[in-house]
Amino acid sequence: MIGIIMGSSSDLPVMQDAIEVCKEFGVSYEVDIVSAHRTPVKMLKYAQDAKSRGIQVIIAGAGGAAHLPGMVASATILPVIGVPVKSSNSIDGWDSVLSILQMPNGVPVATVALNASKNAGLLAIQMLAIGNEDLAKKYESYKESLIEKVAEMSEKTKKSI
Amino acid sequence: MIGIIMGSSSDLPVMQDAIEVCKEFGVSYEVDIVSAHRTPVKMLKYAQDAKSRGIQVIIAGAGGAAHLPGMVASATILPVIGVPVKSSNSIDGWDSVLSILQMPNGVPVATVALNASKNAGLLAIQMLAIGNEDLAKKYESYKESLIEKVAEMSEKTKKSI
Amino acid sequence: MIGIIMGSSSDLPVMQDAIEVCKEFGVSYEVDIVSAHRTPVKMLKYAQDAKSRGIQVIIAGAGGAAHLPGMVASATILPVIGVPVKSSNSIDGWDSVLSILQMPNGVPVATVALNASKNAGLLAIQMLAIGNEDLAKKYESYKESLIEKVAEMSEKTKKSI
Amino acid sequence: MIGIIMGSSSDLPVMQDAIEVCKEFGVSYEVDIVSAHRTPVKMLKYAQDAKSRGIQVIIAGAGGAAHLPGMVASATILPVIGVPVKSSNSIDGWDSVLSILQMPNGVPVATVALNASKNAGLLAIQMLAIGNEDLAKKYESYKESLIEKVAEMSEKTKKSI
Amino acid sequence: MIGIIMGSSSDLPVMQDAIEVCKEFGVSYEVDIVSAHRTPVKMLKYAQDAKSRGIQVIIAGAGGAAHLPGMVASATILPVIGVPVKSSNSIDGWDSVLSILQMPNGVPVATVALNASKNAGLLAIQMLAIGNEDLAKKYESYKESLIEKVAEMSEKTKKSI
Amino acid sequence: MIGIIMGSSSDLPVMQDAIEVCKEFGVSYEVDIVSAHRTPVKMLKYAQDAKSRGIQVIIAGAGGAAHLPGMVASATILPVIGVPVKSSNSIDGWDSVLSILQMPNGVPVATVALNASKNAGLLAIQMLAIGNEDLAKKYESYKESLIEKVAEMSEKTKKSI
Amino acid sequence: MIGIIMGSSSDLPVMQDAIEVCKEFGVSYEVDIVSAHRTPVKMLKYAQDAKSRGIQVIIAGAGGAAHLPGMVASATILPVIGVPVKSSNSIDGWDSVLSILQMPNGVPVATVALNASKNAGLLAIQMLAIGNEDLAKKYESYKESLIEKVAEMSEKTKKSI
Amino acid sequence: MIGIIMGSSSDLPVMQDAIEVCKEFGVSYEVDIVSAHRTPVKMLKYAQDAKSRGIQVIIAGAGGAAHLPGMVASATILPVIGVPVKSSNSIDGWDSVLSILQMPNGVPVATVALNASKNAGLLAIQMLAIGNEDLAKKYESYKESLIEKVAEMSEKTKKSI
Repeated sequence: MIGIIMGSSSDLPVMQDAIEVCKEFGVSYEVDIVSAHRTPVKMLKYAQDAKSRGIQVIIAGAGGAAHLPGMVASATILPVIGVPVKSSNSIDGWDSVLSILQMPNGVPVATVALNASKNAGLLAIQMLAIGNEDLAKKYESYKESLIEKVAEMSEKTKKSI
Repeated sequence: MIGIIMGSSSDLPVMQDAIEVCKEFGVSYEVDIVSAHRTPVKMLKYAQDAKSRGIQVIIAGAGGAAHLPGMVASATILPVIGVPVKSSNSIDGWDSVLSILQMPNGVPVATVALNASKNAGLLAIQMLAIGNEDLAKKYESYKESLIEKVAEMSEKTKKSI
Repeated sequence: MIGIIMGSSSDLPVMQDAIEVCKEFGVSYEVDIVSAHRTPVKMLKYAQDAKSRGIQVIIAGAGGAAHLPGMVASATILPVIGVPVKSSNSIDGWDSVLSILQMPNGVPVATVALNASKNAGLLAIQMLAIGNEDLAKKYESYKESLIEKVAEMSEKTKKSI
Repeated sequence: MIGIIMGSSSDLPVMQDAIEVCKEFGVSYEVDIVSAHRTPVKMLKYAQDAKSRGIQVIIAGAGGAAHLPGMVASATILPVIGVPVKSSNSIDGWDSVLSILQMPNGVPVATVALNASKNAGLLAIQMLAIGNEDLAKKYESYKESLIEKVAEMSEKTKKSI
Repeated sequence: MIGIIMGSSSDLPVMQDAIEVCKEFGVSYEVDIVSAHRTPVKMLKYAQDAKSRGIQVIIAGAGGAAHLPGMVASATILPVIGVPVKSSNSIDGWDSVLSILQMPNGVPVATVALNASKNAGLLAIQMLAIGNEDLAKKYESYKESLIEKVAEMSEKTKKSI
Repeated sequence: MIGIIMGSSSDLPVMQDAIEVCKEFGVSYEVDIVSAHRTPVKMLKYAQDAKSRGIQVIIAGAGGAAHLPGMVASATILPVIGVPVKSSNSIDGWDSVLSILQMPNGVPVATVALNASKNAGLLAIQMLAIGNEDLAKKYESYKESLIEKVAEMSEKTKKSI
Repeated sequence: MIGIIMGSSSDLPVMQDAIEVCKEFGVSYEVDIVSAHRTPVKMLKYAQDAKSRGIQVIIAGAGGAAHLPGMVASATILPVIGVPVKSSNSIDGWDSVLSILQMPNGVPVATVALNASKNAGLLAIQMLAIGNEDLAKKYESYKESLIEKVAEMSEKTKKSI
Repeated sequence: MIGIIMGSSSDLPVMQDAIEVCKEFGVSYEVDIVSAHRTPVKMLKYAQDAKSRGIQVIIAGAGGAAHLPGMVASATILPVIGVPVKSSNSIDGWDSVLSILQMPNGVPVATVALNASKNAGLLAIQMLAIGNEDLAKKYESYKESLIEKVAEMSEKTKKSI
């Protein structure tokens, strides 16, 4: 199961793509609002219990001084994927990116691009696919579909010019 | 009492100035290493207990994805002063500054300049001086001393040219 | 009493949140337009007289080359909270942030996030609550309300997915 | 098995930490120099064959316009961890970070902090530990060791002041 | 012949200007969608075959972690002109610029300004004009037309004031 | 007379070049340490009295949150030239540059490059030369000397290769 | 006379404020479109002839790789004021600012804030006022008007709250 | 013939690599010091005469507000390659990069990475190789040598671990 959390429901439009990826690949998931700064106790408990509750990978999205991914990573041994969100209080996304990416040695966060919750979902699938050949095959098909989409774009573009 | 914490003993050379300010103004203080990422439980307990243990202001220094000041602020009502440290893993200090400064509304951190733990100490003294006229007078004297130092520099410089 | 000043009435929409915090916590406040660059004499006088007029904390908001918070801090022993405003002449807020944050040792400004006048207000309340147990209790309640809001968002989000 | 690659042997001092993590956790690994820009054919073949050769996670380090992690990710379904290296031709590390982090949706790279190959190694272990309880236990011990180190630092620091 | 490629058809509005330049100068060109991250095999083949297919200069546009220009340059001896595109996933264009510009020594990419596909087209014409005096003359005329346009603007502006 | 001021005697090594320019062009000057943050009253008085004391142009150097040039400009009608100093507390000079450059409309500061006090001196001379044909002629000679230096460098370089 | 030039008529809306200042202070001026990159010969001639044609100060506005102010400064001894314009091809104004500000020693440009052509106009007036007591008096009045405007804003704001 | 110019002999250590490339490929070249800001007339003449003197490609290196490449491009139809030099007066190279890269549409400069004069040389060779099959073959060999060097590094690294 993939745990998807974010600091505020205002992050949901960005984080929705990660949910869609779980659906598309048929992987179970769970979504919650967990705020590092407003609910530190809930956040710590979430991180501490995640593994025993069956979660295998955590995706955490946050913006501004985005402490959620790193703080969850501090209290679990599960891999944590961080999604920097360009929230309304962010300085062009730089604070979100640096607060998540620049973790000290000892506590990694797998950071994806600004607002790239789709890639967070895909990365979680890749992690689960390490020990799951069925999922690996689905991912191979997904990669094929990317090639096909470019082929279609290529044809259309050539015609349009 | 002023609580001074930092994420690693490698931050001590930077944070030493805050300690010196406490000594200079005769204000009691306490120093500890508290890491948001390596010791989240200790960190949370530190923040939750600080007020009842007699701490009035907390100074927290950290570098890189610097979550310590903000996370301590999440679990106490005491004012928290954040010192962005230009640690060895920092990108020119930008990550330290943005991770501490850009806190979401609801959980403030009083941020000072990069490596400016002296100003963190002075700011803590200013906060305590709100309700302490003796301390306020000491601070007035400190301000006078700044003027005198510039006067000395001014004289020396004029002579040297 | 909390003194709230800003460089121009165009900063008022951003600074309004600090006023709301004062109202919410029942703390007296006073608002004025004080421009470091257009009214340096008024600014200096404001800073010099603030303490004797009963002001305990100053909140100063400014944008661009934002000198107001630091200059007020130069002429008072009161703690000064600086709010970097992303004004129309600012380069994405960077000038506002750096002009306020990067004060030299000796003259601190407690800087909050870009446009975060709400946090400036909360920080001022925290400072006053050091010596005021009633205000401290109100702040505890405020912190509780943050937790409740996340709980509500959490429930709604789980239902919506 | 963990595949560790880098664009040049000059990246080895930075990437050595990832190797040490593999040794410490007793996980097999393999190291190679693979340059996206100088050896694109070798790079593509490395990515295409990695899974069938038994590699489960790839760690790729590169600096400047760092294309290696993203290009390897383009041709494999394995999770790819990118280490931005502050190489001699890099502009303070910004190019390395952005070239690796800002991957388009569809092809994720799990990015760690600048020069943080230790965290890359730990993240790879976390991924493998999803389906390996022995490795998970070792990681729990590693987390414990972090707490102990802070406790030691805390004691020493308190004595030294 | 000038080969114009881009990572996605969403880059076409930006890249259109390069096409217009080819038309204006009467130089043959060919357009395709080639994605470094989604179609690495097609991309490599494109680069390897370009010269033998009669292409003399390649113009490649891409945004975000923009690897297309550099990767094409890795597998051809033709000059490659890179156009950093400010795509929807880009952080204000900085990632696009740095990913294309900061190529390691040994594999150059001739980078033009953000979104400046017109200049990419003009630069390609300049390269072809080295050995083509007719084209050189056309370029001289183009330069003359720039002077005339400024003269017109100058007159109009003087009148309007 | 040119007034040269700086926030600290630690800025003198950078500001020395402005002094040398005054000497070279035979223009009278005066040097002082005036700190916006430590000596706001002296600073304001300096600005208010400068014109009546015979100063015609003010050169002000400062680093970090560099308020000196802008604050002096707030209280005089003389042109103020600001020199951003890359002081020890500066973040790579960005704070110094933005704090001086980004003045609001109504109060200009003529900003020169980071640490470029030589150019500040030359700019002051240019201003004085508007109404002083002798000084204008000296400046013409200075411009000639720049051409000669390049001619010498050109010859030496051609020989050395 | 003040010479006001810009690289394109698209810069006119930004540069208009400088023209208004000239009108307001009753100083003669002249406006032209001079492009460093499209009309280098006209540009050089403009700079070489400016002084003999009676121009005393040059205001030059440009955006992106903004070479106009620095290049004009290379060929005249008149003071040149540079206005960085946030043009459509600029990266958030950073290129415009740095291209104008960071002039090498020997050739100064008096740089004002991004888009701050009003300040460019005022700075030009300040320069001319050095040797013109009437103009100096007008400038004193202008400074007074700034104080009055803040007083008005102050009153209105106090009433509105 | 390739024309290699730079703004100052202090740029020669960086620009030397471009010279070495010319020697290695047996292409004639010529080196000169041409300063946009100190010798604008010489610079303009250099650009205007370059083609008739037999120059086919110009490589121009400069630092800080680096106007040389763009200004040379303004007055010639030859392709101009710009090398941003991290000179002593540069802000971490950003000014050099942006001043050269961000040219307006109509006047392209082929920009290479910071200090990457080797790539400037290689790019010039690629341009000349468009119409010169012998040079193209030499370039193919050069590309082969890059592959061999990686193979050697690969072997050494595998042995050393």
